[in-house]
Amino acid sequence: MLKDYLRANQQRHLNELLDFLRIPSVSTDSSRQGEVRRAAEFVTDRLTELGFEAQRFETPRHPVVVARYRISDSATTVLVYGHYDVQPPEPLALWTSPPFEPVVEDGLIVARGASDDKGQLYAHIKGAEALLATTGTLPVNLTFLIEGEEEIGSPNLTPFIEAHRELLAADVVLISDGAMVAPDTPTITYGLRGLAYVDVVVRGAGRDLHSGAYGGGAPNAINALAKIIAQLHDEQGRVTVPGFYDAVLELTDTEREAFRQVPFDEAHFKREAGLAATPGELGYTLLERLWARPTLDCNGIGGGFQGEGAKTVIAAEARAKISCRLVPNQDPHDIAAKLAAHLKSLAPPGVEVAVTELHGALPALTPLEAPAVKAAAQALAAVFGRPAVFARTGGTIPVVSTFQELLGAQVVMVGLGLESDKAHSPNEKFDLINYYRGIEVSAALLAALVNAS
Amino acid sequence: MLKDYLRANQQRHLNELLDFLRIPSVSTDSSRQGEVRRAAEFVTDRLTELGFEAQRFETPRHPVVVARYRISDSATTVLVYGHYDVQPPEPLALWTSPPFEPVVEDGLIVARGASDDKGQLYAHIKGAEALLATTGTLPVNLTFLIEGEEEIGSPNLTPFIEAHRELLAADVVLISDGAMVAPDTPTITYGLRGLAYVDVVVRGAGRDLHSGAYGGGAPNAINALAKIIAQLHDEQGRVTVPGFYDAVLELTDTEREAFRQVPFDEAHFKREAGLAATPGELGYTLLERLWARPTLDCNGIGGGFQGEGAKTVIAAEARAKISCRLVPNQDPHDIAAKLAAHLKSLAPPGVEVAVTELHGALPALTPLEAPAVKAAAQALAAVFGRPAVFARTGGTIPVVSTFQELLGAQVVMVGLGLESDKAHSPNEKFDLINYYRGIEVSAALLAALVNAS
Repeated sequence: MLKDYLRANQQRHLNELLDFLRIPSVSTDSSRQGEVRRAAEFVTDRLTELGFEAQRFETPRHPVVVARYRISDSATTVLVYGHYDVQPPEPLALWTSPPFEPVVEDGLIVARGASDDKGQLYAHIKGAEALLATTGTLPVNLTFLIEGEEEIGSPNLTPFIEAHRELLAADVVLISDGAMVAPDTPTITYGLRGLAYVDVVVRGAGRDLHSGAYGGGAPNAINALAKIIAQLHDEQGRVTVPGFYDAVLELTDTEREAFRQVPFDEAHFKREAGLAATPGELGYTLLERLWARPTLDCNGIGGGFQGEGAKTVIAAEARAKISCRLVPNQDPHDIAAKLAAHLKSLAPPGVEVAVTELHGALPALTPLEAPAVKAAAQALAAVFGRPAVFARTGGTIPVVSTFQELLGAQVVMVGLGLESDKAHSPNEKFDLINYYRGIEVSAALLAALVNAS
Repeated sequence: MLKDYLRANQQRHLNELLDFLRIPSVSTDSSRQGEVRRAAEFVTDRLTELGFEAQRFETPRHPVVVARYRISDSATTVLVYGHYDVQPPEPLALWTSPPFEPVVEDGLIVARGASDDKGQLYAHIKGAEALLATTGTLPVNLTFLIEGEEEIGSPNLTPFIEAHRELLAADVVLISDGAMVAPDTPTITYGLRGLAYVDVVVRGAGRDLHSGAYGGGAPNAINALAKIIAQLHDEQGRVTVPGFYDAVLELTDTEREAFRQVPFDEAHFKREAGLAATPGELGYTLLERLWARPTLDCNGIGGGFQGEGAKTVIAAEARAKISCRLVPNQDPHDIAAKLAAHLKSLAPPGVEVAVTELHGALPALTPLEAPAVKAAAQALAAVFGRPAVFARTGGTIPVVSTFQELLGAQVVMVGLGLESDKAHSPNEKFDLINYYRGIEVSAALLAALVNAS
């Protein structure tokens, strides 16, 4: 009956999404402020039409939309997070059709925002519609939280959530703002890494020195910095900062087995990034290292003469940016402090090391055993006709840990798009099949999450 | 009799130098080209008046002056090298008197070029005058080679010397364009270091990568470069490049003893450069390390994000400038090739290292046992009433090795100025006593070098 409804309403569901995509809601472009607001109004109106109690909340920049449908105080509450803003479309010359005039061709919807995140978000709105139309109600209390600043770093979202904890209270947070690990592969992303980032300044001599007059008798800030950085990993590729691994939650056997089931194409990974090798911590597979192991990378370095040609200087100062990707249960401030102490302890004679903590983000994890993860896996398996795979992601999505911290919710990420969707590039697309199947996935997820509180 | 002559002519000798200093011969300033030429004419005229056969040779920029006084084909020939051009005087606001209006006060001559090199050069011209006036001839064949491009790197000097080897043929080259190691300390500088300079590029990934998505599975060009640089010195502070020390001429016992006699103020050295320590190769004194040991310094490094704040990038590329100060008998090309091979051999998995040789300079040495060094030491001891000290310098003066290579001459450097003369800074000065004594030193040197061929 749900399938019949979806089939019967395909064209309208597509047309509504195309209308949404025609709104050039580029959040970073202040000349588009009115268009961004129009996108907020669009989702508010669509959800109101479905019977949601929908509100727009003003922020210093673009409004937050909250729309709630309550079935009972005792029911499980699911919050779907998404965003109505999009990346700038530039460079326009590389688009084969105008970015805000969607084209449907060869089974693809081509437009800015098609995958990131309008298409994925609208699939959830239509999933709710399908349930309401076919059952007269929803299986859970459902809240949509839709922001308009995701592409500019969500500056106002955490304060908003903090200020509206009751309104947003939820047992499960569902996020569809990403990709499956491979086409036709139902994917649940249940964890991501955090971040600790520091700035390091190494000072040797009191001023830049002539390498002829002083070479052999003066500390060299660049050589000292190189020596310090070189000591941050041991021969096994492990980070040498004392206590670095103390809080690390090791992968369970279940997770390691789950990662082995992920159809990850290592050759493609290497080819796409131009890698001749994938060095890292010994004792872990590549996916384990990318998703579930903490790392340390130097993100920038500078000192002395960097121009054309030669200058015989011994630089007084050299700088580096160093960051660590963190995994549960590492704490960004704790790691930054340990890293700072270690960096200072490695200073060679005559050299001073100063460290500034720049910014951090908490890692996040919803255990594979969590009811919401299990329910979501069942729903995905039913729709796709094959078992879901369980992934983490190596990057950081600060809002995820915010949901965990402030709402105490189980966060489940179900990417409906593909890595090949060109999310931030010209000719962004969303496969028609992923849109239509996404609506079905959404309805199935809500039904499955009934007992996930 | 020489002393009487010098005393009687002091005021005139000073006045002539002041006239020379009034010419703003700033070689780098194209608007001063006429003034630079006037300085060339000034020394040509003064030497012609003394009976020298003086000529100006045009170059693409500023003329070279050669003036010769021949006493016999069999006599020792001494060539005095100096330069008539000066550094720019800027910043003018920091001068207590105009840079080209010399002031004589408190025993100092204050003007641009007073010490570097007009004062020191003119002392030699007046030394020759004093000998000619008091003996009617010179003890040696004497050639002045005076260029006008020293302060812009002597771009035309080596080709000029190559093209005029016969005209410039000499047994001894005397250079006074520097400083005594301490006031009232007769100093013979008999060696200097060479240079090998390379540019290093380390490439890891094919493009800059997101540290979240790739951290733990991609080579990091900056970390790799740091690791490579850190391995270039061992725990003893020795350079690890295979074969690096093969050609090194070790210090003789005589030299080590001579260095111990140098009144070198290590506390001042550290204070002036702002050094908390003077790390270097174990087993050598600081002076030995600065003057007679080869070194390796990273002169510049850059890669990844160097701006304000944080960017989570794994840079595809990182670069460094690395140079080695060389000592006799190391060869710049040989060392650059060995360094390049070593750098490449240190590349971690997945990383490529490319090395470009940028430029090199030969080290130079006139043995302490050379007749010219011994004769100069006797002359200095007689004038100062105390023994000369023997120094090397850690820097590179390319023309010195050119004189050794192309003329086969013994090069002896006798600095008549002081480190405190502010050679390239505002309020450059030359002590009157160093000027007057410099004239006497010049005459004594020429007399002592009679048998130094």
